Amino acid sequence: MEHAIGVDIGGTQTRVAAVGEGQILARRAFPTRGIHEVERAIREVLVEVGWPQPTTIGVGAPAPMDMRAGRILGCPNLPHWNGVEVTQDLGRAFGCPVSLANDATCAAIGELAYGYRARDFVYLTWSTGIGGGIVSGGRVVWGASGQAGEIGHIVLEPDGPPCACGKRGCLEALAGGASLARRAAAELGTSLSARQLVERAAYDAAARRLIASACRALGQGIAILWEILEPERIILGGGLTGSWATLGPQVLSAARSMARGEPRLERTRLGDDVGLLGAAALPAHLPTDW
Amino acid sequence: MEHAIGVDIGGTQTRVAAVGEGQILARRAFPTRGIHEVERAIREVLVEVGWPQPTTIGVGAPAPMDMRAGRILGCPNLPHWNGVEVTQDLGRAFGCPVSLANDATCAAIGELAYGYRARDFVYLTWSTGIGGGIVSGGRVVWGASGQAGEIGHIVLEPDGPPCACGKRGCLEALAGGASLARRAAAELGTSLSARQLVERAAYDAAARRLIASACRALGQGIAILWEILEPERIILGGGLTGSWATLGPQVLSAARSMARGEPRLERTRLGDDVGLLGAAALPAHLPTDW
Repeated sequence: MEHAIGVDIGGTQTRVAAVGEGQILARRAFPTRGIHEVERAIREVLVEVGWPQPTTIGVGAPAPMDMRAGRILGCPNLPHWNGVEVTQDLGRAFGCPVSLANDATCAAIGELAYGYRARDFVYLTWSTGIGGGIVSGGRVVWGASGQAGEIGHIVLEPDGPPCACGKRGCLEALAGGASLARRAAAELGTSLSARQLVERAAYDAAARRLIASACRALGQGIAILWEILEPERIILGGGLTGSWATLGPQVLSAARSMARGEPRLERTRLGDDVGLLGAAALPAHLPTDW
Repeated sequence: MEHAIGVDIGGTQTRVAAVGEGQILARRAFPTRGIHEVERAIREVLVEVGWPQPTTIGVGAPAPMDMRAGRILGCPNLPHWNGVEVTQDLGRAFGCPVSLANDATCAAIGELAYGYRARDFVYLTWSTGIGGGIVSGGRVVWGASGQAGEIGHIVLEPDGPPCACGKRGCLEALAGGASLARRAAAELGTSLSARQLVERAAYDAAARRLIASACRALGQGIAILWEILEPERIILGGGLTGSWATLGPQVLSAARSMARGEPRLERTRLGDDVGLLGAAALPAHLPTDW
Protein backbone atom coordinates (compact mmCIF):
# COMPACT_ATOMS: atom_id res chain seq x y z
CA MET A 1 0.00 0.00 0.00
CA GLU A 2 1.08 3.53 -0.78
CA HIS A 3 2.32 5.56 2.14
CA ALA A 4 2.68 8.89 0.40
CA ILE A 5 3.86 12.11 1.98
CA GLY A 6 3.02 15.44 0.33
CA VAL A 7 4.77 18.70 1.17
CA ASP A 8 3.47 22.04 -0.08
CA ILE A 9 5.91 24.85 0.66
CA GLY A 10 4.13 28.18 0.36
CA GLY A 11 5.39 31.73 0.57
CA THR A 12 3.89 32.08 4.03
CA GLN A 13 2.68 28.62 5.09
CA THR A 14 4.01 25.09 4.65
CA ARG A 15 1.70 22.07 4.72
CA VAL A 16 2.70 18.46 5.18
CA ALA A 17 0.35 15.51 4.86
CA ALA A 18 0.22 11.75 4.90
CA VAL A 19 -1.99 10.72 1.98
CA GLY A 20 -3.57 7.33 1.39
CA GLU A 21 -5.94 6.61 -1.48
CA GLY A 22 -6.56 10.29 -2.12
CA GLN A 23 -7.41 11.05 1.49
CA ILE A 24 -5.37 13.22 3.82
CA LEU A 25 -4.89 10.95 6.85
CA ALA A 26 -2.84 13.37 8.95
CA ARG A 27 -1.54 16.85 8.39
CA ARG A 28 0.55 19.67 9.78
CA ALA A 29 0.58 23.34 8.76
CA PHE A 30 3.06 25.91 10.03
CA PRO A 31 4.75 29.16 8.99
CA THR A 32 7.30 28.47 6.26
CA ARG A 33 10.86 28.07 7.57
CA GLY A 34 13.37 25.54 6.30
CA ILE A 35 13.91 21.82 5.76
CA HIS A 36 14.26 20.91 9.46
CA GLU A 37 10.70 22.03 10.19
CA VAL A 38 9.50 19.96 7.23
CA GLU A 39 11.43 16.92 8.41
CA ARG A 40 9.93 17.24 11.90
CA ALA A 41 6.40 17.58 10.52
CA ILE A 42 6.86 14.50 8.36
CA ARG A 43 7.98 12.51 11.42
CA GLU A 44 4.92 13.72 13.31
CA VAL A 45 2.42 12.69 10.65
CA LEU A 46 4.17 9.33 10.22
CA VAL A 47 3.72 8.65 13.93
CA GLU A 48 0.13 9.81 13.79
CA VAL A 49 -0.82 7.41 10.99
CA GLY A 50 1.45 4.63 12.23
CA TRP A 51 3.64 4.27 9.14
CA PRO A 52 7.20 3.20 9.90
CA GLN A 53 8.36 5.14 6.85
CA PRO A 54 6.91 6.71 3.72
CA THR A 55 7.01 4.97 0.34
CA THR A 56 7.46 8.31 -1.46
CA ILE A 57 7.71 12.01 -0.66
CA GLY A 58 6.65 14.69 -3.13
CA VAL A 59 7.46 18.35 -2.57
CA GLY A 60 5.96 21.39 -4.31
CA ALA A 61 7.53 24.84 -4.01
CA PRO A 62 6.90 28.26 -5.55
CA ALA A 63 10.53 28.73 -6.49
CA PRO A 64 12.98 28.36 -9.35
CA MET A 65 14.48 24.91 -9.10
CA ASP A 66 16.63 22.31 -10.76
CA MET A 67 13.96 19.68 -10.81
CA ARG A 68 16.15 16.81 -12.02
CA ALA A 69 18.67 17.49 -9.27
CA GLY A 70 15.89 18.16 -6.75
CA ARG A 71 17.43 21.45 -5.69
CA ILE A 72 15.73 24.78 -4.99
CA LEU A 73 17.57 27.71 -6.56
CA GLY A 74 17.81 31.29 -5.37
CA CYS A 75 14.36 32.53 -4.36
CA PRO A 76 14.00 35.76 -2.37
CA ASN A 77 10.62 34.65 -0.98
CA LEU A 78 11.98 31.43 0.52
CA PRO A 79 15.25 32.49 2.19
CA HIS A 80 15.61 29.25 4.17
CA TRP A 81 15.37 27.15 1.02
CA ASN A 82 17.93 28.75 -1.26
CA GLY A 83 20.26 26.08 -2.60
CA VAL A 84 18.70 23.33 -0.46
CA GLU A 85 19.14 19.81 -1.87
CA VAL A 86 15.55 18.88 -1.14
CA THR A 87 15.36 15.38 -2.62
CA GLN A 88 18.80 14.36 -1.40
CA ASP A 89 18.30 15.62 2.17
CA LEU A 90 14.79 14.24 2.66
CA GLY A 91 15.73 11.02 0.85
CA ARG A 92 18.57 10.46 3.29
CA ALA A 93 16.35 11.29 6.28
CA PHE A 94 13.50 8.96 5.31
CA GLY A 95 15.09 6.33 3.06
CA CYS A 96 12.61 6.71 0.21
CA PRO A 97 12.44 8.38 -3.22
CA VAL A 98 11.73 12.11 -3.06
CA SER A 99 10.65 14.36 -5.92
CA LEU A 100 10.43 18.11 -6.22
CA ALA A 101 8.34 20.22 -8.61
CA ASN A 102 6.81 23.63 -9.09
CA ASP A 103 3.80 24.17 -6.82
CA ALA A 104 1.37 25.04 -9.62
CA THR A 105 2.35 21.89 -11.50
CA CYS A 106 1.71 19.94 -8.30
CA ALA A 107 -1.72 21.53 -8.11
CA ALA A 108 -2.42 20.40 -11.69
CA ILE A 109 -1.38 16.89 -10.63
CA GLY A 110 -3.76 17.19 -7.68
CA GLU A 111 -6.58 17.88 -10.15
CA LEU A 112 -5.42 15.06 -12.43
CA ALA A 113 -5.19 12.49 -9.64
CA TYR A 114 -8.00 13.47 -7.27
CA GLY A 115 -10.02 16.35 -8.70
CA TYR A 116 -11.07 17.03 -12.25
CA ARG A 117 -9.23 13.91 -13.60
CA ALA A 118 -9.50 14.99 -17.24
CA ARG A 119 -7.24 14.52 -20.25
CA ASP A 120 -6.72 18.14 -21.24
CA PHE A 121 -6.83 21.01 -18.80
CA VAL A 122 -4.81 23.83 -17.31
CA TYR A 123 -4.60 24.59 -13.61
CA LEU A 124 -4.04 28.27 -12.86
CA THR A 125 -3.20 29.82 -9.47
CA TRP A 126 -4.33 33.39 -9.02
CA SER A 127 -2.77 34.56 -5.82
CA THR A 128 0.18 36.79 -4.81
CA GLY A 129 1.69 35.56 -8.06
CA ILE A 130 0.23 33.71 -11.03
CA GLY A 131 1.33 30.19 -11.95
CA GLY A 132 0.08 27.28 -13.95
CA GLY A 133 0.33 23.59 -14.64
CA ILE A 134 -0.69 21.90 -17.89
CA VAL A 135 -2.12 18.45 -18.55
CA SER A 136 -2.37 17.17 -22.12
CA GLY A 137 -3.71 13.75 -23.07
CA GLY A 138 -3.76 12.82 -19.38
CA ARG A 139 -0.08 13.63 -18.89
CA VAL A 140 1.69 16.57 -17.34
CA VAL A 141 3.38 18.94 -19.79
CA TRP A 142 6.73 19.32 -18.05
CA GLY A 143 8.81 21.14 -20.64
CA ALA A 144 12.49 20.55 -21.20
CA SER A 145 13.41 20.82 -17.50
CA GLY A 146 10.09 20.88 -15.66
CA GLN A 147 9.51 24.64 -15.93
CA ALA A 148 6.52 24.60 -18.30
CA GLY A 149 3.33 26.39 -17.24
CA GLU A 150 4.84 29.76 -16.35
CA ILE A 151 1.72 31.57 -17.45
CA GLY A 152 2.41 34.41 -14.98
CA HIS A 153 5.43 35.41 -17.01
CA ILE A 154 3.96 35.69 -20.47
CA VAL A 155 4.45 39.28 -21.61
CA LEU A 156 1.15 40.96 -22.51
CA GLU A 157 2.39 44.56 -22.54
CA PRO A 158 6.00 44.84 -23.70
CA ASP A 159 6.16 48.41 -22.36
CA GLY A 160 4.06 47.68 -19.29
CA PRO A 161 4.96 47.84 -15.59
CA PRO A 162 8.10 46.05 -14.38
CA CYS A 163 7.72 42.48 -13.11
CA ALA A 164 9.67 40.91 -10.26
CA CYS A 165 11.20 38.56 -12.87
CA GLY A 166 13.04 41.45 -14.52
CA LYS A 167 10.82 41.77 -17.60
CA ARG A 168 7.99 44.22 -18.23
CA GLY A 169 4.27 43.74 -18.66
CA CYS A 170 4.10 40.10 -17.55
CA LEU A 171 0.62 38.81 -16.70
CA GLU A 172 1.73 38.60 -13.06
CA ALA A 173 2.75 42.27 -13.08
CA LEU A 174 -0.69 43.18 -14.46
CA ALA A 175 -2.94 40.87 -12.43
CA GLY A 176 -1.02 39.19 -9.58
CA GLY A 177 -2.09 39.98 -6.02
CA ALA A 178 1.24 41.54 -5.02
CA SER A 179 1.27 43.86 -8.02
CA LEU A 180 -2.39 44.79 -7.44
CA ALA A 181 -1.53 45.76 -3.86
CA ARG A 182 1.43 47.80 -5.12
CA ARG A 183 -0.71 49.59 -7.67
CA ALA A 184 -3.40 50.24 -5.05
CA ALA A 185 -0.79 51.88 -2.80
CA ALA A 186 0.49 54.01 -5.68
CA GLU A 187 -2.85 54.98 -7.21
CA LEU A 188 -5.21 55.05 -4.21
CA GLY A 189 -2.63 56.14 -1.64
CA THR A 190 -3.59 53.45 0.87
CA SER A 191 -2.06 50.16 1.81
CA LEU A 192 -4.51 47.44 0.83
CA SER A 193 -4.24 43.74 0.17
CA ALA A 194 -5.59 42.56 -3.17
CA ARG A 195 -8.54 41.08 -1.28
CA GLN A 196 -9.29 44.43 0.41
CA LEU A 197 -8.99 46.13 -2.95
CA VAL A 198 -11.70 43.83 -4.31
CA GLU A 199 -13.99 44.79 -1.43
CA ARG A 200 -13.26 48.47 -1.96
CA ALA A 201 -14.18 48.17 -5.64
CA ALA A 202 -17.81 47.85 -4.52
CA TYR A 203 -17.95 51.58 -3.76
CA ASP A 204 -14.73 53.13 -5.16
CA ALA A 205 -14.38 53.74 -8.89
CA ALA A 206 -10.56 53.89 -8.83
CA ALA A 207 -10.39 50.50 -7.09
CA ARG A 208 -12.93 49.18 -9.58
CA ARG A 209 -10.74 50.29 -12.50
CA LEU A 210 -7.70 48.52 -11.07
CA ILE A 211 -9.66 45.32 -10.55
CA ALA A 212 -11.21 45.52 -14.01
CA SER A 213 -7.81 45.94 -15.64
CA ALA A 214 -6.43 42.93 -13.71
CA CYS A 215 -9.42 40.81 -14.76
CA ARG A 216 -8.94 41.84 -18.39
CA ALA A 217 -5.27 40.85 -18.28
CA LEU A 218 -6.08 37.50 -16.69
CA GLY A 219 -8.82 36.93 -19.27
CA GLN A 220 -6.31 37.65 -22.04
CA GLY A 221 -3.87 35.15 -20.53
CA ILE A 222 -6.64 32.56 -20.31
CA ALA A 223 -7.63 33.20 -23.94
CA ILE A 224 -3.99 32.66 -24.96
CA LEU A 225 -3.91 29.33 -23.10
CA TRP A 226 -7.19 28.41 -24.77
CA GLU A 227 -5.85 29.01 -28.29
CA ILE A 228 -2.48 27.35 -27.69
CA LEU A 229 -3.63 24.30 -25.73
CA GLU A 230 -7.34 23.83 -26.46
CA PRO A 231 -8.01 22.49 -22.95
CA GLU A 232 -11.41 21.12 -21.95
CA ARG A 233 -11.38 23.70 -19.21
CA ILE A 234 -9.18 25.89 -17.07
CA ILE A 235 -9.34 25.26 -13.35
CA LEU A 236 -8.52 28.12 -11.03
CA GLY A 237 -7.30 28.19 -7.46
CA GLY A 238 -5.43 30.59 -5.19
CA GLY A 239 -6.44 33.38 -2.83
CA LEU A 240 -7.95 35.76 -5.36
CA THR A 241 -10.42 33.13 -6.56
CA GLY A 242 -12.02 33.53 -3.11
CA SER A 243 -13.60 36.65 -4.62
CA TRP A 244 -14.82 34.77 -7.67
CA ALA A 245 -18.41 36.06 -7.49
CA THR A 246 -17.06 39.54 -8.21
CA LEU A 247 -14.04 38.70 -10.34
CA GLY A 248 -15.12 35.60 -12.24
CA PRO A 249 -17.64 37.22 -14.59
CA GLN A 250 -15.13 39.92 -15.55
CA VAL A 251 -12.37 37.39 -16.20
CA LEU A 252 -14.66 35.14 -18.21
CA SER A 253 -16.04 37.97 -20.29
CA ALA A 254 -12.52 39.14 -21.20
CA ALA A 255 -11.41 35.58 -21.99
CA ARG A 256 -14.42 35.00 -24.25
CA SER A 257 -13.84 38.21 -26.16
CA MET A 258 -10.26 37.14 -26.94
CA ALA A 259 -10.67 33.43 -27.65
CA ARG A 260 -12.56 31.55 -30.30
CA GLY A 261 -14.98 29.04 -28.87
CA GLU A 262 -16.14 29.37 -25.30
CA PRO A 263 -13.42 29.13 -22.69
CA ARG A 264 -14.69 27.20 -19.70
CA LEU A 265 -13.45 28.23 -16.28
CA GLU A 266 -14.02 26.44 -13.02
CA ARG A 267 -12.74 26.84 -9.48
CA THR A 268 -10.90 23.88 -7.98
CA ARG A 269 -13.04 21.72 -5.74
CA LEU A 270 -10.00 20.61 -3.77
CA GLY A 271 -9.61 24.04 -2.16
CA ASP A 272 -6.33 24.81 -0.45
CA ASP A 273 -5.36 21.13 -0.48
CA VAL A 274 -4.99 20.87 -4.25
CA GLY A 275 -1.23 21.48 -4.19
CA LEU A 276 -0.67 19.29 -1.16
CA LEU A 277 -2.57 16.34 -2.66
CA GLY A 278 -0.73 16.92 -5.93
CA ALA A 279 2.65 16.91 -4.19
CA ALA A 280 1.76 13.53 -2.66
CA ALA A 281 0.80 12.24 -6.13
CA LEU A 282 3.82 13.80 -7.86
CA PRO A 283 6.04 10.65 -7.93
CA ALA A 284 3.50 8.85 -10.13
CA HIS A 285 3.43 11.67 -12.67
CA LEU A 286 7.08 12.44 -13.30
CA PRO A 287 8.38 12.41 -16.88
CA THR A 288 8.82 8.77 -17.83
CA ASP A 289 11.98 9.27 -19.86
CA TRP A 290 14.13 11.35 -17.51
CA MET B 1 6.14 -2.82 -44.57
CA GLU B 2 4.53 0.58 -44.32
CA HIS B 3 3.06 1.95 -47.51
CA ALA B 4 2.19 5.41 -46.26
CA ILE B 5 0.55 8.16 -48.28
CA GLY B 6 0.85 11.76 -47.15
CA VAL B 7 -1.37 14.56 -48.45
CA ASP B 8 -0.61 18.22 -47.70
CA ILE B 9 -3.44 20.48 -48.82
CA GLY B 10 -2.19 24.04 -49.02
CA GLY B 11 -3.98 27.31 -49.72
CA THR B 12 -2.50 27.35 -53.23
CA GLN B 13 -0.77 24.01 -53.78
CA THR B 14 -1.56 20.43 -52.83
CA ARG B 15 1.19 17.82 -52.47
CA VAL B 16 0.76 14.07 -52.39
CA ALA B 17 3.55 11.59 -51.67
CA ALA B 18 4.24 7.92 -51.14
CA VAL B 19 6.55 7.69 -48.14
CA GLY B 20 8.61 4.68 -47.09
CA GLU B 21 11.03 4.78 -44.14
CA GLY B 22 11.07 8.55 -44.05
CA GLN B 23 11.85 8.91 -47.75
CA ILE B 24 9.53 10.37 -50.36
CA LEU B 25 9.44 7.64 -53.02
CA ALA B 26 7.07 9.38 -55.43
CA ARG B 27 5.26 12.68 -55.37
CA ARG B 28 2.77 14.91 -57.13
CA ALA B 29 2.14 18.64 -56.67
CA PHE B 30 -0.69 20.59 -58.27
CA PRO B 31 -2.87 23.65 -57.70
CA THR B 32 -5.32 22.99 -54.86
CA ARG B 33 -8.74 21.87 -56.07
CA GLY B 34 -10.84 19.18 -54.41
CA ILE B 35 -10.83 15.56 -53.34
CA HIS B 36 -10.98 14.07 -56.87
CA GLU B 37 -7.64 15.60 -57.78
CA VAL B 38 -6.16 14.19 -54.57
CA GLU B 39 -7.60 10.76 -55.28
CA ARG B 40 -6.12 10.78 -58.79
CA ALA B 41 -2.71 11.86 -57.51
CA ILE B 42 -2.71 9.09 -54.91
CA ARG B 43 -3.47 6.54 -57.64
CA GLU B 44 -0.62 7.90 -59.72
CA VAL B 45 1.99 7.67 -56.96
CA LEU B 46 0.76 4.18 -56.02
CA VAL B 47 1.35 3.04 -59.59
CA GLU B 48 4.73 4.76 -59.66
CA VAL B 49 6.00 2.96 -56.55
CA GLY B 50 4.20 -0.29 -57.36
CA TRP B 51 2.03 -0.51 -54.21
CA PRO B 52 -1.33 -2.24 -54.78
CA GLN B 53 -2.80 -0.06 -52.03
CA PRO B 54 -1.61 2.13 -49.18
CA THR B 55 -1.50 0.92 -45.58
CA THR B 56 -2.47 4.38 -44.30
CA ILE B 57 -3.28 7.85 -45.62
CA GLY B 58 -2.65 10.99 -43.59
CA VAL B 59 -4.01 14.36 -44.67
CA GLY B 60 -3.05 17.81 -43.41
CA ALA B 61 -5.11 20.90 -44.19
CA PRO B 62 -5.03 24.57 -43.17
CA ALA B 63 -8.70 24.60 -42.25
CA PRO B 64 -11.08 24.30 -39.34
CA MET B 65 -12.04 20.64 -39.07
CA ASP B 66 -13.79 18.03 -37.04
CA MET B 67 -10.74 15.87 -36.61
CA ARG B 68 -12.49 12.91 -34.99
CA ALA B 69 -15.06 12.79 -37.79
CA GLY B 70 -12.37 13.48 -40.41
CA ARG B 71 -14.38 16.33 -41.92
CA ILE B 72 -13.21 19.75 -43.12
CA LEU B 73 -15.47 22.56 -41.95
CA GLY B 74 -16.26 25.85 -43.64
CA CYS B 75 -13.03 27.43 -44.86
CA PRO B 76 -13.14 30.35 -47.32
CA ASN B 77 -9.61 29.58 -48.56
CA LEU B 78 -10.45 26.00 -49.56
CA PRO B 79 -13.82 26.29 -51.34
CA HIS B 80 -13.65 22.77 -52.83
CA TRP B 81 -13.14 21.22 -49.40
CA ASN B 82 -15.94 22.74 -47.35
CA GLY B 83 -17.84 19.96 -45.60
CA VAL B 84 -15.86 17.21 -47.36
CA GLU B 85 -15.77 13.92 -45.43
CA VAL B 86 -12.08 13.43 -46.06
CA THR B 87 -11.39 10.27 -44.09
CA GLN B 88 -14.61 8.58 -45.10
CA ASP B 89 -14.27 9.35 -48.83
CA LEU B 90 -10.58 8.46 -49.16
CA GLY B 91 -11.04 5.45 -46.88
CA ARG B 92 -13.74 4.11 -49.18
CA ALA B 93 -11.64 4.81 -52.28
CA PHE B 94 -8.47 3.11 -51.02
CA GLY B 95 -9.68 0.64 -48.38
CA CYS B 96 -7.31 1.79 -45.65
CA PRO B 97 -7.44 3.94 -42.50
CA VAL B 98 -7.29 7.69 -43.22
CA SER B 99 -6.60 10.45 -40.73
CA LEU B 100 -6.96 14.21 -40.99
CA ALA B 101 -5.24 16.92 -38.95
CA ASN B 102 -4.27 20.56 -38.99
CA ASP B 103 -1.35 21.22 -41.34
CA ALA B 104 0.89 22.86 -38.72
CA THR B 105 0.38 19.92 -36.40
CA CYS B 106 1.33 17.63 -39.30
CA ALA B 107 4.50 19.68 -39.74
CA ALA B 108 5.31 19.21 -36.05
CA ILE B 109 4.84 15.46 -36.58
CA GLY B 110 7.18 15.69 -39.58
CA GLU B 111 9.83 17.15 -37.26
CA LEU B 112 9.07 14.58 -34.58
CA ALA B 113 9.28 11.60 -36.95
CA TYR B 114 11.91 12.65 -39.47
CA GLY B 115 13.47 15.98 -38.50
CA TYR B 116 14.38 17.33 -35.10
CA ARG B 117 13.00 14.19 -33.30
CA ALA B 118 13.07 15.83 -29.85
CA ARG B 119 10.85 15.46 -26.76
CA ASP B 120 9.78 19.05 -26.32
CA PHE B 121 9.48 21.51 -29.14
CA VAL B 122 7.09 23.74 -31.01
CA TYR B 123 6.79 23.93 -34.78
CA LEU B 124 5.69 27.32 -36.06
CA THR B 125 4.66 28.22 -39.62
CA TRP B 126 5.23 31.81 -40.60
CA SER B 127 3.54 32.23 -43.94
CA THR B 128 0.32 33.80 -45.21
CA GLY B 129 -1.04 32.85 -41.80
CA ILE B 130 0.66 31.71 -38.61
CA GLY B 131 0.10 28.24 -37.19
CA GLY B 132 1.75 25.88 -34.79
CA GLY B 133 2.08 22.33 -33.56
CA ILE B 134 3.30 21.31 -30.12
CA VAL B 135 5.24 18.25 -28.99
CA SER B 136 5.64 17.57 -25.26
CA GLY B 137 7.45 14.55 -23.83
CA GLY B 138 7.70 13.12 -27.36
CA ARG B 139 3.93 13.28 -27.90
CA VAL B 140 1.77 15.66 -29.86
CA VAL B 141 -0.28 18.08 -27.76
CA TRP B 142 -3.64 17.68 -29.51
CA GLY B 143 -5.99 19.51 -27.17
CA ALA B 144 -9.56 18.44 -26.49
CA SER B 145 -10.47 18.04 -30.17
CA GLY B 146 -7.18 18.33 -32.05
CA GLN B 147 -7.17 22.13 -32.34
CA ALA B 148 -4.24 22.90 -30.02
CA GLY B 149 -1.36 24.96 -31.37
CA GLU B 150 -3.35 27.91 -32.71
CA ILE B 151 -0.55 30.33 -31.93
CA GLY B 152 -1.65 32.62 -34.78
CA HIS B 153 -4.82 33.44 -32.89
CA ILE B 154 -3.45 34.44 -29.52
CA VAL B 155 -4.50 38.04 -28.92
CA LEU B 156 -1.52 40.32 -28.32
CA GLU B 157 -3.30 43.65 -28.80
CA PRO B 158 -6.92 43.55 -27.63
CA ASP B 159 -7.60 46.82 -29.48
CA GLY B 160 -5.38 45.97 -32.44
CA PRO B 161 -6.25 45.44 -36.12
CA PRO B 162 -9.07 43.03 -37.01
CA CYS B 163 -8.13 39.43 -37.76
CA ALA B 164 -9.78 37.16 -40.32
CA CYS B 165 -10.98 35.02 -37.38
CA GLY B 166 -13.24 37.82 -36.13
CA LYS B 167 -11.13 38.90 -33.16
CA ARG B 168 -8.72 41.83 -32.93
CA GLY B 169 -4.96 41.99 -32.50
CA CYS B 170 -4.23 38.30 -33.06
CA LEU B 171 -0.59 37.45 -33.75
CA GLU B 172 -1.62 36.54 -37.31
CA ALA B 173 -3.18 39.98 -37.80
CA LEU B 174 0.06 41.59 -36.63
CA ALA B 175 2.65 39.39 -38.30
CA GLY B 176 1.06 37.04 -40.85
CA GLY B 177 2.04 37.46 -44.50
CA ALA B 178 -1.48 38.32 -45.67
CA SER B 179 -1.90 41.03 -43.05
CA LEU B 180 1.55 42.41 -43.81
CA ALA B 181 0.62 42.68 -47.48
CA ARG B 182 -2.64 44.42 -46.50
CA ARG B 183 -0.83 46.86 -44.26
CA ALA B 184 1.74 47.55 -46.97
CA ALA B 185 -1.06 48.41 -49.38
CA ALA B 186 -2.69 50.72 -46.84
CA GLU B 187 0.45 52.40 -45.51
CA LEU B 188 2.80 52.40 -48.51
CA GLY B 189 0.12 52.67 -51.16
CA THR B 190 1.51 49.84 -53.28
CA SER B 191 0.51 46.25 -53.73
CA LEU B 192 3.35 44.12 -52.40
CA SER B 193 3.65 40.55 -51.19
CA ALA B 194 5.11 40.09 -47.72
CA ARG B 195 8.29 38.83 -49.41
CA GLN B 196 8.52 41.95 -51.56
CA LEU B 197 7.93 44.08 -48.49
CA VAL B 198 10.94 42.44 -46.84
CA GLU B 199 13.09 43.31 -49.88
CA ARG B 200 11.82 46.87 -49.87
CA ALA B 201 12.71 47.26 -46.19
CA ALA B 202 16.37 47.36 -47.27
CA TYR B 203 15.93 50.89 -48.59
CA ASP B 204 12.49 52.13 -47.40
CA ALA B 205 12.00 53.23 -43.79
CA ALA B 206 8.21 52.76 -43.84
CA ALA B 207 8.58 49.16 -45.06
CA ARG B 208 11.27 48.63 -42.43
CA ARG B 209 8.91 49.81 -39.70
CA LEU B 210 6.20 47.40 -40.82
CA ILE B 211 8.63 44.50 -40.90
CA ALA B 212 10.08 45.45 -37.51
CA SER B 213 6.65 45.56 -35.93
CA ALA B 214 5.76 42.13 -37.38
CA CYS B 215 9.04 40.68 -36.08
CA ARG B 216 8.38 42.13 -32.63
CA ALA B 217 4.90 40.60 -32.54
CA LEU B 218 6.23 37.21 -33.65
CA GLY B 219 9.00 37.46 -31.04
CA GLN B 220 6.38 38.20 -28.38
CA GLY B 221 4.37 35.14 -29.46
CA ILE B 222 7.51 33.00 -29.34
CA ALA B 223 8.34 34.31 -25.86
CA ILE B 224 4.83 33.37 -24.74
CA LEU B 225 5.28 29.84 -26.09
CA TRP B 226 8.63 29.67 -24.34
CA GLU B 227 7.18 30.57 -20.93
CA ILE B 228 4.13 28.35 -21.25
CA LEU B 229 5.74 25.26 -22.74
CA GLU B 230 9.48 25.47 -21.99
CA PRO B 231 10.37 23.75 -25.26
CA GLU B 232 13.95 22.77 -26.10
CA ARG B 233 13.56 24.91 -29.17
CA ILE B 234 11.08 26.39 -31.59
CA ILE B 235 11.37 25.27 -35.20
CA LEU B 236 10.15 27.59 -37.89
CA GLY B 237 8.98 26.95 -41.41
CA GLY B 238 6.81 28.68 -44.00
CA GLY B 239 7.39 31.21 -46.74
CA LEU B 240 8.49 34.13 -44.60
CA THR B 241 11.32 32.13 -43.07
CA GLY B 242 12.88 32.23 -46.54
CA SER B 243 13.95 35.77 -45.53
CA TRP B 244 15.41 34.58 -42.25
CA ALA B 245 18.75 36.36 -42.66
CA THR B 246 16.87 39.67 -42.44
CA LEU B 247 13.99 38.69 -40.17
CA GLY B 248 15.52 36.09 -37.85
CA PRO B 249 17.72 38.41 -35.79
CA GLN B 250 14.81 40.81 -35.21
CA VAL B 251 12.47 38.01 -34.17
CA LEU B 252 15.06 36.45 -31.88
CA SER B 253 15.95 39.72 -30.25
CA ALA B 254 12.29 40.46 -29.49
CA ALA B 255 11.74 36.94 -28.17
CA ARG B 256 14.76 37.16 -25.88
CA SER B 257 13.67 40.48 -24.44
CA MET B 258 10.30 38.99 -23.50
CA ALA B 259 11.26 35.53 -22.24
CA ARG B 260 13.39 34.38 -19.37
CA GLY B 261 16.18 32.08 -20.44
CA GLU B 262 17.32 32.06 -24.04
CA PRO B 263 14.69 31.03 -26.57
CA ARG B 264 16.28 28.90 -29.24
CA LEU B 265 14.94 29.21 -32.77
CA GLU B 266 15.84 27.08 -35.74
CA ARG B 267 14.56 26.75 -39.28
CA THR B 268 13.20 23.37 -40.31
CA ARG B 269 15.69 21.26 -42.23
CA LEU B 270 12.86 19.43 -44.00
CA GLY B 271 11.99 22.47 -46.09
CA ASP B 272 8.64 22.47 -47.86
CA ASP B 273 8.24 18.74 -47.27
CA VAL B 274 7.88 18.97 -43.50
CA GLY B 275 4.07 18.99 -43.61
CA LEU B 276 3.88 16.31 -46.29
CA LEU B 277 6.18 13.94 -44.39
CA GLY B 278 4.24 14.70 -41.23
CA ALA B 279 0.93 13.91 -42.91
CA ALA B 280 2.32 10.53 -43.93
CA ALA B 281 3.45 9.92 -40.33
CA LEU B 282 0.20 11.23 -38.81
CA PRO B 283 -1.52 7.84 -38.26
CA ALA B 284 1.25 6.78 -35.84
CA HIS B 285 0.86 9.92 -33.73
CA LEU B 286 -2.87 10.19 -33.19
CA PRO B 287 -4.21 10.49 -29.63
CA THR B 288 -4.10 7.00 -28.16
CA ASP B 289 -7.33 7.31 -26.18
CA TRP B 290 -9.72 8.68 -28.81
